Formats: sequence, C-alpha cells, structure tokens
Amino acid sequence: MQLGMIGLGRMGASMAQRLAEHGHVCVVYDLRAEAIDAALRPGIVGASSLEALVATLHKPRAIWLMVPAGVVDDDLALLAPLLEPGDILIDGGNSCYRDDIRRGAELKARQVHYVDVGTSGGVAGLGRGYCLMIGGDKEVVRHLDPIFTALAPGADAAAPTTGHQTPDSTAEQGYLHCGQHGAGHFVKMVHNGIEYGIMGAYAEGLNILHNADIGKRASSTDAETTPLRNPADYQYELDLPEIAELWRHGSVIRSWLLDLTAMALRADPELAGFKGSVADSGEGRWTLAAALDEAVPAPILSAAVFERFSSRGDADFANKLLSAMRYGFGGHVEKTGKTGGE
Amino acid sequence: MQLGMIGLGRMGASMAQRLAEHGHVCVVYDLRAEAIDAALRPGIVGASSLEALVATLHKPRAIWLMVPAGVVDDDLALLAPLLEPGDILIDGGNSCYRDDIRRGAELKARQVHYVDVGTSGGVAGLGRGYCLMIGGDKEVVRHLDPIFTALAPGADAAAPTTGHQTPDSTAEQGYLHCGQHGAGHFVKMVHNGIEYGIMGAYAEGLNILHNADIGKRASSTDAETTPLRNPADYQYELDLPEIAELWRHGSVIRSWLLDLTAMALRADPELAGFKGSVADSGEGRWTLAAALDEAVPAPILSAAVFERFSSRGDADFANKLLSAMRYGFGGHVEKTGKTGGE
Amino acid sequence: MQLGMIGLGRMGASMAQRLAEHGHVCVVYDLRAEAIDAALRPGIVGASSLEALVATLHKPRAIWLMVPAGVVDDDLALLAPLLEPGDILIDGGNSCYRDDIRRGAELKARQVHYVDVGTSGGVAGLGRGYCLMIGGDKEVVRHLDPIFTALAPGADAAAPTTGHQTPDSTAEQGYLHCGQHGAGHFVKMVHNGIEYGIMGAYAEGLNILHNADIGKRASSTDAETTPLRNPADYQYELDLPEIAELWRHGSVIRSWLLDLTAMALRADPELAGFKGSVADSGEGRWTLAAALDEAVPAPILSAAVFERFSSRGDADFANKLLSAMRYGFGGHVEKTGKTGGE
Amino acid sequence: MQLGMIGLGRMGASMAQRLAEHGHVCVVYDLRAEAIDAALRPGIVGASSLEALVATLHKPRAIWLMVPAGVVDDDLALLAPLLEPGDILIDGGNSCYRDDIRRGAELKARQVHYVDVGTSGGVAGLGRGYCLMIGGDKEVVRHLDPIFTALAPGADAAAPTTGHQTPDSTAEQGYLHCGQHGAGHFVKMVHNGIEYGIMGAYAEGLNILHNADIGKRASSTDAETTPLRNPADYQYELDLPEIAELWRHGSVIRSWLLDLTAMALRADPELAGFKGSVADSGEGRWTLAAALDEAVPAPILSAAVFERFSSRGDADFANKLLSAMRYGFGGHVEKTGKTGGE
Repeated sequence: MQLGMIGLGRMGASMAQRLAEHGHVCVVYDLRAEAIDAALRPGIVGASSLEALVATLHKPRAIWLMVPAGVVDDDLALLAPLLEPGDILIDGGNSCYRDDIRRGAELKARQVHYVDVGTSGGVAGLGRGYCLMIGGDKEVVRHLDPIFTALAPGADAAAPTTGHQTPDSTAEQGYLHCGQHGAGHFVKMVHNGIEYGIMGAYAEGLNILHNADIGKRASSTDAETTPLRNPADYQYELDLPEIAELWRHGSVIRSWLLDLTAMALRADPELAGFKGSVADSGEGRWTLAAALDEAVPAPILSAAVFERFSSRGDADFANKLLSAMRYGFGGHVEKTGKTGGE
Repeated sequence: MQLGMIGLGRMGASMAQRLAEHGHVCVVYDLRAEAIDAALRPGIVGASSLEALVATLHKPRAIWLMVPAGVVDDDLALLAPLLEPGDILIDGGNSCYRDDIRRGAELKARQVHYVDVGTSGGVAGLGRGYCLMIGGDKEVVRHLDPIFTALAPGADAAAPTTGHQTPDSTAEQGYLHCGQHGAGHFVKMVHNGIEYGIMGAYAEGLNILHNADIGKRASSTDAETTPLRNPADYQYELDLPEIAELWRHGSVIRSWLLDLTAMALRADPELAGFKGSVADSGEGRWTLAAALDEAVPAPILSAAVFERFSSRGDADFANKLLSAMRYGFGGHVEKTGKTGGE
Repeated sequence: MQLGMIGLGRMGASMAQRLAEHGHVCVVYDLRAEAIDAALRPGIVGASSLEALVATLHKPRAIWLMVPAGVVDDDLALLAPLLEPGDILIDGGNSCYRDDIRRGAELKARQVHYVDVGTSGGVAGLGRGYCLMIGGDKEVVRHLDPIFTALAPGADAAAPTTGHQTPDSTAEQGYLHCGQHGAGHFVKMVHNGIEYGIMGAYAEGLNILHNADIGKRASSTDAETTPLRNPADYQYELDLPEIAELWRHGSVIRSWLLDLTAMALRADPELAGFKGSVADSGEGRWTLAAALDEAVPAPILSAAVFERFSSRGDADFANKLLSAMRYGFGGHVEKTGKTGGE
Repeated sequence: MQLGMIGLGRMGASMAQRLAEHGHVCVVYDLRAEAIDAALRPGIVGASSLEALVATLHKPRAIWLMVPAGVVDDDLALLAPLLEPGDILIDGGNSCYRDDIRRGAELKARQVHYVDVGTSGGVAGLGRGYCLMIGGDKEVVRHLDPIFTALAPGADAAAPTTGHQTPDSTAEQGYLHCGQHGAGHFVKMVHNGIEYGIMGAYAEGLNILHNADIGKRASSTDAETTPLRNPADYQYELDLPEIAELWRHGSVIRSWLLDLTAMALRADPELAGFKGSVADSGEGRWTLAAALDEAVPAPILSAAVFERFSSRGDADFANKLLSAMRYGFGGHVEKTGKTGGE
C-alpha cells in the first residue's frame, strides 16, 4: 500500500527503504531537500512540501511521522488542515504517551485517526526489521496491517516460545496492537526504561571486572582513605573483550545488548573513543514518572537514569555540598585531608 | 577423556550426561545412591564411594565437584588425601573466588592442581551447552580442554561478533581461561550480579505495565494518601504475555532472560504459582563486596540484591521504624491516619 | 489580627490555638460541628458555615485552609464566589506546588490573593511553633507577617548560625517568603523528600544493628542459600534504645528525627506495635518528579520513596516475575530449591 | 586519672586538651615533635618516644591511640612488647570492627586489655564533647569511666527523651558500653553509614532546589534531548542559604548536619570553594558489607556511598560503556547525536 513518510533521519529513511523493499510505495518529505534526494529509489517518491505529499497520497491517506518528539505537535498543526476525514496520522517517534492521548482526542474532532507507534530496533532495523508497539483504534490499526507486517522482523526473528507459533498473535511477527491512544508509546517507554536498566547492569558489572587488578596498584595511608583490606583478592587482569564474547555463548545473560557490547569492546578495548557523558531520551524519565504515579518500586530503573544524569555532571552541586559538610564537621579538606573523625 | 564427577544434582547430572554424549567417560558419585543409579548410561560409570571414584580414574586424575558451595571444603578435605601429585580438582559450583585463592594455595602444597569453573546455562545447558569461566594454571586448564570443549555450547551458539570467527579464541566456543585461581568464579560472580540487575530491570518494567490500569481503580481522599493526579493517563489493560513475546522480535531488549519471561507469562499470566519470595545466591552479594573494595559504583546491581532481601521481609524492622517515626512527628497511625503535616 | 481557619484536624486546630495564644482572633470552620466545639477557647470563634465565616471576617479577609490536598480545589470553588477583591486565601496543607501556580492565576482573575504555605513541625508545633515556607506576592505575604510571626518558632529555636542574628532575615524566626506562587510548597516538597531520605537512613542503619547477632542463628546449607562466611563477626546483641539515646548526645547524626526515634525505641524496643506498612504523602513522589525534570540525580531520595512502596507490597508482581525467571533458567523452586547454577 | 595519648592530629590533640581541662593528666606522643610541643599545656605532658610514654604512665597503664586506621596494627606491634599484664590499649580511631575482634584476641594472649571506641563529634568535640561508642570487657570499660565521662558531652547536650533522666544510663551522658570487642566500632561504623545517607539526602534535596530555575534556561530540540515539558513549573530562584537557615527553626529535618549546611551556604552560597570530589572513609563501605552479610536491605546507604564513588570519577568506564552501547544500537554519537530510536 501507499504511505507518506515525514522525517528522513536515520530511522525514517531506513524505514521507507524497508517498506519499498517489501513492495510498498512511500511518498517522503524532509525539510532538507538533500535528504529526500538521498532517499529516492524504486518505490520511494519525493514530495517537495507537505501539501505535495498530501496531494500525492490516495485516500484514506496514511502518513507516518518520524521526527524528533519536540516537533511532532508543530508538524501535526501543519498537516491536520490539509487532511480529510478518515485520513490517518501515525507518530512513530519517541513521543510521550500523554501527548498521544491529547492528540488522539484533538484529531478525532477532525475525524482524522491517530496511531502511536513505539519503534525499537535502531539502525539494525533496516535489515532485521523493527519491533513495533502500537496504540490507537483497533480498526485503524488493522487497516495498517500491511505496513506493520513489512516493517516488523517476522516470526523467524526468534524461536517460538512454546515450540510452535500461535496463529493469531502478531506479537510473534514483531508488532502488537497494545491498546488505545498512547498504549504503543507507553509500552515503548517502559521498554526503554528496561533498556536503561539492562545497559547499566552490564556497565556496572564490566566496570567491576575492569578494576579487578586494583590490588596491584599502590594506595596511600591516611585517615581519609580506606586502605584496601585484601589486595591479594584483586590481582586479576581480565580480558574484557573476550569475556563479553564468552558470555554470548550459552550464558544466562546473553542478549542483543551484550552482542553490541562485545562488538564495541573488540573494536576499542579501553573505549578510548568515548567520553562517558551519557544522554537520556525522555522515556527513562517518563517510565519513572509512571512508576511514581502507580506506586510501583523501580529502584533499578531509577538508578540507571540517575547514573546518566551523574555522568553529565548534574550531581556537582550536591557533591560540593557533601564536601562542605565534611569540612564543617571534620575539618576535612578535599583530597589532602588528614584525620578528623566523622 | 575420563572425568570424575561428584554431585549429581540438576547441574552435575546433566553435565555428566553431556560429557558422555560427547564421547567422554564420567565416573560419578553422589551421597544419594539413587542419584547415581539415575545417572547411569553409556559413558557414565557409578562409584560407590570417593575412594572407589579415585581408584577408578586414570592418572593424572581429573575430578569435578558440582556440589553446594557450603560443602566444597569438606569434600576437598576428604578427597585431597586420596590424590597424588599431578591430579586435578575442579570446582564447578558457586564458590566465592576468595575460597578458590585459598584452596589453590593449599592444594599446591600437595602438588594437586585446582581449577575453578564458573558454570552458566542452567537446566537448558544439557542441550545447549554451558558457558564456562575458568581460573587456574594455564597448562592445567589446557589439559582439560577436551572437557571444556564438550561442555561448552560451541561457536554456533551465537553469530560471530565481527562477521568471522577468531581462530584462537575459545571464548567463541563458550569457554575461557580468565586468569589465575579464582578468576573463573570472579567472572561468574559478576555475571550473576549482572543477571540480578537484568532480571530486576524486566521485573520492574513489567510491574509498571501491570499497573497501567491504576486510573480505573478508585482511591480515597485523605491527607495521607496521594490522590492520583491524572487517572486518565492510566487506563491501559496491557497483555503482558503478548508484550513479552513482542519484545523478543527485533527489540533492543531481546535476550534469553526475556525468552524465559515470555515463557513464564504465557504459562501463567498472573504468576499465581509464585509467592514472590526471592532467594539470592551469594554471587550477587560478593559482586557488591567487590564493587565496594574497588570503589566502583554499582547502584543498579545493589538495588537488585536489596529488592530480593526486601521480597523476603528483611526490611520489616526498618519499615516499622519508619512507621514509628511518622507516628512520632505527625501522629500518623498506620493506614488509617488523618492529616498531620510531615 | 484576624484569620479564618478552615479545617480543624490535628494541624488546623493546633495552629488556631497557637494563634489565639499569641493574641490573634481565629474564626474557625470544619465540616464536623464537634470539631468546631472542641476548638473553641478565648480568641477562637466558631462559624457554622463558610458563608458565616466569610461574613465574620474584617476586610481584607485572610482565610487559611488546613485541609487534605485532595479537597482544596473544592473548597476554593466554594469560597471564591464569597470573597471580594483584596481578600487573601492561604493553603497551608500539602498541595502540589503546580496546583498553586494554577490557583494563583485563577484567583488573580478575581483579584483574590493566593498564598501557599508549606508547614512543618507536626503535632509538636503547637508548643514549639511551625516552620513556614511561603509562596506568593511579596506585599500580600508581608501583610500576613503577624500571623507568620505567631505561628513560627522564633529565633530561640536554634542557636544563631554565625553567632549573631541577621536583623532582616525572617528565616531565623522560622518563616520565609521563598518566591512566587508555589515556591512555598516547592520548598516544603523538597523538605519532605529530604525527610524521607533521613528517616530511611536511620531505619536502614538501625536494622543493620538489629541484626548484628545473625552469627548466632543457625543457617542451612544448600546451593540456594549463601552461608554466612564469618559468623564470628556477627555476635553482637545491641541495645537499640540505648544507642539511639547515645547518638543524641554529641554525635554527628543528632537530629530531631533521632530524638523521635529514641523516644519510639524506648517506649517499644521491638516496635511490636507497628506493622511496617509505610504510607507516603505526595511530596516524596513530587520531589522525584522535579528531580527528573531538572535532570538532578536523586538516588537516595528515590530509594526512600521506593522502600515505602515496597513496604506496602507494591513490588509483589515484580518479585513473582523474578521467581518465575529463576524457575525458568535454573529450575529453582521458591524456598525449597536445590542446586541449579544461575 | 592518667592517660597516654598517641597521635596528635586534629582529633587526638583536642581530646587530650579536653581531658586536661577536666582534670586528667595526659602523656602525649606523636611522630611529629612539633605536634607534641603544640599540645603542651597544664595537664598535658609530652613523651619523646613510645618507650618514654609507657615509662611515664602509672600501672595499670591506659593508652589511647588516635591514629589513622591503617597504622594501628603497626603501633600495636610496637607497643605490646612494652606493656605488662593488666595494661589497657584503646583504639579511638576509625578501625574496622573486624580488626578489633582479632586484636582483642591477640592482646588477650598477652593479658593486655583492648578497648575499641568509636568517636563522633568532629572538630566541634573539644568544646561540646565527643559521643563515644565503646566495645570491650565490661570491667575494663568501667575502669575507664572517668575518661569517658570527661570526653563525653554530658546529659545537658540534649533534652531528656522521656522528660527525666534515667540514672544508670550512660547513654544520656554521651557514652555507652555497646558490647564485646568491636561493638564500639560496629556501632560507629553504622553511625557513619547513616551519616552518609543523611548528608546525601540534604545534598540531593538542595540540588533540586538549586535547579528550580531550569525553566528559565533555553534548551535545544533534537531526538536525543528531552525537552522540559513544563518550563513554567521551574521558574524559582531560591535562596539556599536562607532556606537552610529556615529549616533549622522548627522543621522536621532540623539536625546538626543541617546547622553545618546552613553555615557553609551562608559563607559561600555557590560553594565555589569546593570541587565536589568526595572522599569516603571505610565505615560507609563496611556498613554495606555488614548489610550484605545480614541480608538487610540498605538502598539509601548504598546510594550514598556510590554517589561518593561517582563524584570521584570511578564510574567513568561504566559510562563509556553506556555510550558505546548507545552508539552500537542507535548510532548515537555523544552530545551531538541525531534521531535513532532507542
């Protein structure tokens, strides 16, 4: 079928390409004309403006937005007046699900359908397919089934859970209608929260392995520094790239994120190419906001988000306060302090 | 080659079977005679005592212990006098690596070799193979290579990280000599610490999905209870078995632990068969002890361990203290309190 | 001066009494007529309805609401039509500061002033005074100065920070105009977040002391349970009431919450009168929401909030998932499991 | 009575002075001759060597060590041969309680008594007195009662918990015999663990207040950065020194650490004099090790310790791993990344 695609960043361009490869026709638009040119291939048609894109599509139109969450509302405001009752707008980016609820209601007033799709898979999705978490009206979602089928990885992406496939479960194909407006982004939000936690678990564990030789390093003796009580227990110089590779084979913690970790460590064992300042997209924070609203404990997921904040220096004022308090009660001066009895 | 196997629990029995299937000969022993009987098959020979087991093995003997960590020292004390210089003792269970360092030194005095093997893979290892993390002398480990090769999953267990295999890396086969005594259990220890973190990340995230319908439930208004500010945002009744299945196909968080989660949720969507009192083997705690010694932050891994403690009621006294303090400053009575201005 | 007081729970009744004792006149109202009767004393006048209360007050009227956060908006909706330009409404309860921002703007349209006051001090405030964190227009707040002076503890409540008092700082008297609408409840919100953290720190620490005799208790040996490696290190039977008392005298961690803890432990050393199901008012959650919006790491404050959630069983589904996963990979059955190699 | 004091750092020198001011005689020694000279005053006698110190003291001798934990064992090895049965060695520094258990047993073989004293109060203790947590044999501790009485703050340091003093409770004087060898340092260890938690709670909370103006700052729009959804909620420019001062007066969270915080913020509101690299003495780590051994959840105390580790850059490798993984799945480049769908 035919789909409009707005936003030709890494994700949008790849998704249009995958759709075209599966026999669909994409009419694509991006603010950057060169992005449109780069995207063209059999099955992909460029549009020079939103108006042109809308005019090119058959009715009922289906238009997929793959743009930063911060500009979705602006794009919807431009698009909505161009559309007709029965048309479908799809937000496949990283919107907060609360915006989906609002947008779904707003567009309904115009009889335009809204579908939110949480999209996972990253840059590898072009070849492997994307995992799609979908929210919206049941019939509208069903209408888009050919699109979802083409984008999703298909059942071969994983062995059947019970040994055989369940005929009417699209989950096994890699896409799922999760519920009403926002349900797709809600599930994707939690997916990303979990992702943060898993990434952090590997990172912390590998950092412990990385420092397993600490007993070989000298340490000074003063009242401020804890001497390592048992240096003989920390004499290991571990080969992290090999260990990450090892765990991929049969361990309980094998996963795709571990595959990526092994790849990164093999390419750059000391990770010298990275500074360690870790961004966080909104999903991690919104996951915690949901946990707080629901009164669900989420210490792991919150630790993962806070580690990222700290990696960017956002704890600096708090740390200065700790130093100031230590100076206050113990006369401790940072780093050169002598005894002072906390 | 020939291997003695002591301890025929779930893991030991399966490992002996896998070795036999790969053409090795196992001489097996367990305190429970019926466990020996159950283990017998072509390639597996029973021994009626430790002495019989030792007498049956060719020299240099190689004996693998697969027993609870708490009884390894007792078994070693019984075995050591029966052995001769050049014999090899392997601890494949969940020992703390610090014990390995000590045992390695103690057995060296008898010219008996000691090898520690962290074994991952669980009950599925019989068919898929076990991921083996190995510590000990290089030559002794090399001598045991046929055993490790048979137990490990082999390179087919995962696609090559760089697109092609690295000829001399046993990590790609699923086993690795990590370093001196204790290195195997050190790496396994951190593996389990990471495992706790990953499990907890899924559990917290799915719990948030599980409660996404909280806006549909009534809530009372008093000064103690926070009213949910936005019930319209929590109207989702999500199908957790389907979502876990979905994520297995192309999502960033696909993993073997997710496969198990999908299986468990499909079999019992409300998990009514579980109470939620979660044991912790020692590796999680020891991982944190290592993090503390190394001054490596591990907030995710510690949250995972503490969640398990809490699940068993170990926070009860602390919680009572919180209630007592709240009563002290605000006159708050548990659960039925009225306003009191914290 | 004259003040209307609506809501005669523990806090409202005590505050009216303290104001009357300082020479002010309070016109009080509560839905429960018996609460009004109980509050009457010299300087306290009862009103039989909101209309009567409004009619009784001199203009410009100042009316203080001390009611559950969930009913403030309802009360404001009843009151606003009864008021005249220049009148002042004060919310002294536990509202979310975001509501203050909204209410301030809504009431401004009616030329009614709105002031938010975060009130700390608990039931002890009647005698000692209340710590008041205030948001609103500067001049309106200044107009209410006699009220705040009477409610606040006064400078004698703590020794001067720099050895002498700062003449124009009301902070030393125990009240402070923090900023525009919501600033008072914002500061109070964070105050409560900190309070949760401090309470949790004591509770965790005392729980560790409470279990310092764990080496005296027997423990079983199986592959699931970590044997305590060093029982000789945990042979202490510590006297918690005495230790809490001790710390009040000269230790770094002396505080009012410690005073309360010592009192609670002296009265009931095993805290048998409490179940340990800990409520959380909204401020802790809102503090975390602010930390997330600001990208400020708050692992301690979040741990404190999540401990309370867990104390009420809100982690149960997550814990069941952990058990289900452990069963999946290791065949571990809860509590009675045997070896299974995580 | 007479006491030997070894170690004239900030704490040791002040304690000798306080003892002298209470009529005791201190024979003092330090490796730095100038520290001895500086300590001399009526009631304080200098000794030029350990031998001289021992020779100067009446029998049974009582010698207090106030030296870094890392050198206590060395000092004990020098002192023990100089002593006679019945002499008493006191470690008032920050030793790990496990060392006390060992030392108590070792010295007992020489019939020398060992007493461990956890000392809290910091540099303010000279004037206010020290809070003393004591471990050792009951009679030996009782023999030292005059010393403890002089060092402790006395009952006036805090209002009686139940309105009147308990005659036989030394806790109200500020010292307590907690139990056998190590009990003093065990209780002090947990005291410091709690201290870390409380300090961190204030620091996190004040950091949230510090950033309450984040809505006034510009933010960019791309797929990596979460736009602040509600900038209108973060328009507060809060006066932290005044707020810290305010809370000292009647709030629930008033404490001595808050007094110090108010002092530090008044002196330097932006804390420009501090870098925020926070040391940790061993007690925080050992507290967590005890929590792990006891299976007591301690998420707040561990978060506090890990925040300190992170403040010193010990998370760097972990953070680089997170960046590497993000690059792997989303092509995210640190800080300049574009859209990529986690």
